[in-house]
Amino acid sequence: MNIKSYLAEKRGVVEKALSSCMLKPEGELARHIESMNYSLDAGGKRVRPILCLATIEALGADIEPYLTVCCALECIHTYSLIHDDLPAMDDDELRRGKPTNHMVYGEAGAILAGDGLLSYAFELLSKPVPSSALDDTSRLRIIHIISRAIGPLGMVGGQALDIDAEQRKVPFESLQMIHRCKTGALITASVQTGAILARADNEQFLSLTEYGNNVGLAFQIVDDLLNVEGTTERLGKTAGSDATRNKSTYPAFFGVEKTRHMAEETIKAAKHALKDFDDKADPLRKLADYIYNRTH
Amino acid sequence: MNIKSYLAEKRGVVEKALSSCMLKPEGELARHIESMNYSLDAGGKRVRPILCLATIEALGADIEPYLTVCCALECIHTYSLIHDDLPAMDDDELRRGKPTNHMVYGEAGAILAGDGLLSYAFELLSKPVPSSALDDTSRLRIIHIISRAIGPLGMVGGQALDIDAEQRKVPFESLQMIHRCKTGALITASVQTGAILARADNEQFLSLTEYGNNVGLAFQIVDDLLNVEGTTERLGKTAGSDATRNKSTYPAFFGVEKTRHMAEETIKAAKHALKDFDDKADPLRKLADYIYNRTH
Repeated sequence: MNIKSYLAEKRGVVEKALSSCMLKPEGELARHIESMNYSLDAGGKRVRPILCLATIEALGADIEPYLTVCCALECIHTYSLIHDDLPAMDDDELRRGKPTNHMVYGEAGAILAGDGLLSYAFELLSKPVPSSALDDTSRLRIIHIISRAIGPLGMVGGQALDIDAEQRKVPFESLQMIHRCKTGALITASVQTGAILARADNEQFLSLTEYGNNVGLAFQIVDDLLNVEGTTERLGKTAGSDATRNKSTYPAFFGVEKTRHMAEETIKAAKHALKDFDDKADPLRKLADYIYNRTH
Repeated sequence: MNIKSYLAEKRGVVEKALSSCMLKPEGELARHIESMNYSLDAGGKRVRPILCLATIEALGADIEPYLTVCCALECIHTYSLIHDDLPAMDDDELRRGKPTNHMVYGEAGAILAGDGLLSYAFELLSKPVPSSALDDTSRLRIIHIISRAIGPLGMVGGQALDIDAEQRKVPFESLQMIHRCKTGALITASVQTGAILARADNEQFLSLTEYGNNVGLAFQIVDDLLNVEGTTERLGKTAGSDATRNKSTYPAFFGVEKTRHMAEETIKAAKHALKDFDDKADPLRKLADYIYNRTH
């Protein structure tokens, strides 16, 4: 299989689903809805929904009934980017090569675009669906896993730690915790969501969680590397900004070469977690490689 | 029945439940958790959870198994206050007589405290509970009603409209929509949540929704009035700030006297919606009066 064409195809599937389940910018609320859609349409790679879809396929299930759930994952990820970019947070002016949300809609507009996307994600997750596709107990379990992953002990907590860690040296354990919470938790939850949707048994669920944890960690390590090695043009966001802000990162602790080696080991561990899965899990395996090799 | 002692008692119940279901500020995330708890403990009237509890009791059910759900409503309300107070929004320094969240934890800390509370609310709503108390289908319905009420077409959308409406005259229809979305939607959802928890039949659900809509509207009209008539000391927030900001409000449209009459009519409509309920609904009736008569 070719991972590039797989990603392109699945990205198309996710974007089609997004355009059918997002609100249309009409009426009095048009500008607010437009502000949500602006960031959602800003050319993301759709890594989280694709991880969810690839997990469903790895277990041999059909993705069609679950696209709304995947859209919710992308809404949550987009909300987190909008809030992270705010002047009070990372103060970024560019994201994926386009002006960040607050540059277009102002600070208040951007805070509310994020809040709207987060709330809307739960609206999508709890939307009535044909019960044949998904039983209520599993849906509640998914909502619980996702809300835990993005809450005070997950993504939001990780961002709070990350902000606190700016301008000062933190121990490596703290950096690991920031990475695990801030990026890892939602990535793992995306894989776990796919596992529940495709009715994974307990052992499969644990293996996929292990895969998700490692892919999530690798994703953040590579992000740190790209911030050092990348160019602003290729990244679509300001390169070198971590070093300027004196941020604790993997390269700051271990140097570029050792960091790259650690990323490689983490990807190996992710793929090892899939050892009992057949070739239907190849997209998950290749996705891990893709995350290691990505340049932006 | 005495509404003051009813409110005091139920407020105690809600606060006890909150202290048992909120996170403890321990470990690396202590400060982030503290920032969430700071605003949650800042002396709110607990109107939304109490409306939910009073609705459950109006239908003759036991409140004990549903306290976690009530806590989620208060988390959501508190998140909305934290974000509304931000410098980029209403830029308020006082809330309930105490420094607002961003005055204590900084802007980034306050944005994340709000984000954390919102996510945590859904964690509470989806928490596994004994299925005897609440079936999964009803829980999903509650999550759906609440997430719709607070999303882009509800509370967040209302705040976006409210921000847009600053410094310019908007037509009365827009003001009504702002009120309905910004304050009314979550109040109605709190009553609807109680109705679902207590297994209301369809007719009861509609009557209670009608009650909630009117109470929510009255609440905002009275808020507008208090901003004109109150003192900063009594309100615990800056009095007269609406007029200073040239905000569209009921008193700005109709003057104080007519506005007070409109609030009165709205309260009457709320109570009329309960005409088929017995005296177990008295707390709901008195709550409507209380909302009309409140001074802060």
